[in-house]
Amino acid sequence: MNRKALIDQIFKKKSFLCVGLDPDLNKIPKHLLETSDPIFEFNKAIIDATSDLCVAYKPNLAFYECLGISGWKSFQKTIDYIPKECLIIADAKRGDIGNTSLYYAKTFFETYSCDALTITPYMGSDSVKPFLTHENKWAVVLAMTSNEGARDFQFLEANNVPIFEAVVEKCKEWGSEENMMFVVGATRSEDIAKMRKLAPNHFFLVPGVGAQGGSLKEVVAYGINKECGLLVNSSRAIIYADQSENFAFGAKKEALKIQTEMGEYLKRL
Amino acid sequence: MNRKALIDQIFKKKSFLCVGLDPDLNKIPKHLLETSDPIFEFNKAIIDATSDLCVAYKPNLAFYECLGISGWKSFQKTIDYIPKECLIIADAKRGDIGNTSLYYAKTFFETYSCDALTITPYMGSDSVKPFLTHENKWAVVLAMTSNEGARDFQFLEANNVPIFEAVVEKCKEWGSEENMMFVVGATRSEDIAKMRKLAPNHFFLVPGVGAQGGSLKEVVAYGINKECGLLVNSSRAIIYADQSENFAFGAKKEALKIQTEMGEYLKRL
Repeated sequence: MNRKALIDQIFKKKSFLCVGLDPDLNKIPKHLLETSDPIFEFNKAIIDATSDLCVAYKPNLAFYECLGISGWKSFQKTIDYIPKECLIIADAKRGDIGNTSLYYAKTFFETYSCDALTITPYMGSDSVKPFLTHENKWAVVLAMTSNEGARDFQFLEANNVPIFEAVVEKCKEWGSEENMMFVVGATRSEDIAKMRKLAPNHFFLVPGVGAQGGSLKEVVAYGINKECGLLVNSSRAIIYADQSENFAFGAKKEALKIQTEMGEYLKRL
Repeated sequence: MNRKALIDQIFKKKSFLCVGLDPDLNKIPKHLLETSDPIFEFNKAIIDATSDLCVAYKPNLAFYECLGISGWKSFQKTIDYIPKECLIIADAKRGDIGNTSLYYAKTFFETYSCDALTITPYMGSDSVKPFLTHENKWAVVLAMTSNEGARDFQFLEANNVPIFEAVVEKCKEWGSEENMMFVVGATRSEDIAKMRKLAPNHFFLVPGVGAQGGSLKEVVAYGINKECGLLVNSSRAIIYADQSENFAFGAKKEALKIQTEMGEYLKRL
């Protein structure tokens, strides 16, 4: 999916919500465990309940990989099931030497036809560039994350700028706003403002709203641009909103609440 | 495998060689493509030819993932085939928020019973710590890599120390020489010396010898410690030494050459 199509979807659906598909056998409703593919059945119900309210899905690969072959089968079925108008972001945080990165790009953009892949930039240019050569595909580079450990290295200052800023500056030389997004944690509004200044036109994938404590209002206040420029992810707060047999309805209700708020913000652009 | 067992193997086999299992359908001998699992057949022959000459194998996950389900099946069979006295390092460069890292640890230490996993430290503490709680398992943290892009971020200086040094200092607070190794590129001897000073007792996994141009002699001169403390990896230079039907013999010859040199270095300890 290219940038224009993504922006069109955002304004059509009045939403910049990304739903994180982190299916956990210990958390999904018990009655699904009796089906032949509980992970896919769970995702399918969540997708059915939310696909008119969100513009993207972000399956987190750890939750599939840990189940071995059956997890990868569930992942494939999930990818195939997601409606074509939704962006699929494989949250796999890959990144390696150039030769290896080529194979990771092949994995997620060809073997599984995802639209985007999260990338960890520690190894520099050749760990990022191979993900930028596939037409209409996206590298979503970790810049400033929302987790507890983010401050350990990302905020160290070299030449008076934090490392995450150096990452963004370098990445902008390698990719463009047509094939690159940045992961920007929702937990610190002054840093979102800084990121927006650094990359005025790039899309930001913003985790940390919901279970991790970030506020949508703050993210929008400091991060939105004229084309929206945001994909705000919520995983656990939506998919585990209700853990009963009515889980899909609970997820829909939570997604609708977020989408309604997002609709208001988009009106003002 | 614990530290003592690894050191014992090194001195018993007179080798600190790690063979990288990066099987590429475009490079493996053509006759194997007619078998039902060319990737496994290739690995099996390489393992048969080299397991008395090396102490570790390092399958690079990108080469398995890119083949989808069949790749993961080949990976599983490869893991099961590797002799128990060899350390298995899954080169997957994972790292994510704490909750997700737990599932990656489960993937590689439980679902697939690898001994060690490469970890990318960009996200800080909670992207590393969950890999340190499994008994006799290892987190192999990227510190200073051997690739072209390594200089982009790892060598930026914050508080007068390069980022890779900050990574090592922090990681030493989180893990010990019993459950943590560092990835140290073979391409710059003065930096290997610096790394050894920073972490006198930790094992280093050293890629970059062979296809990437590093010299074993230099690595040893600057990186060896009294218990060896090195696992030197060679992938392409061994597994593709000969691309004919006699590929396994070619791999053995190349591995033997390296092991013979390593035996000499170990004698001097």
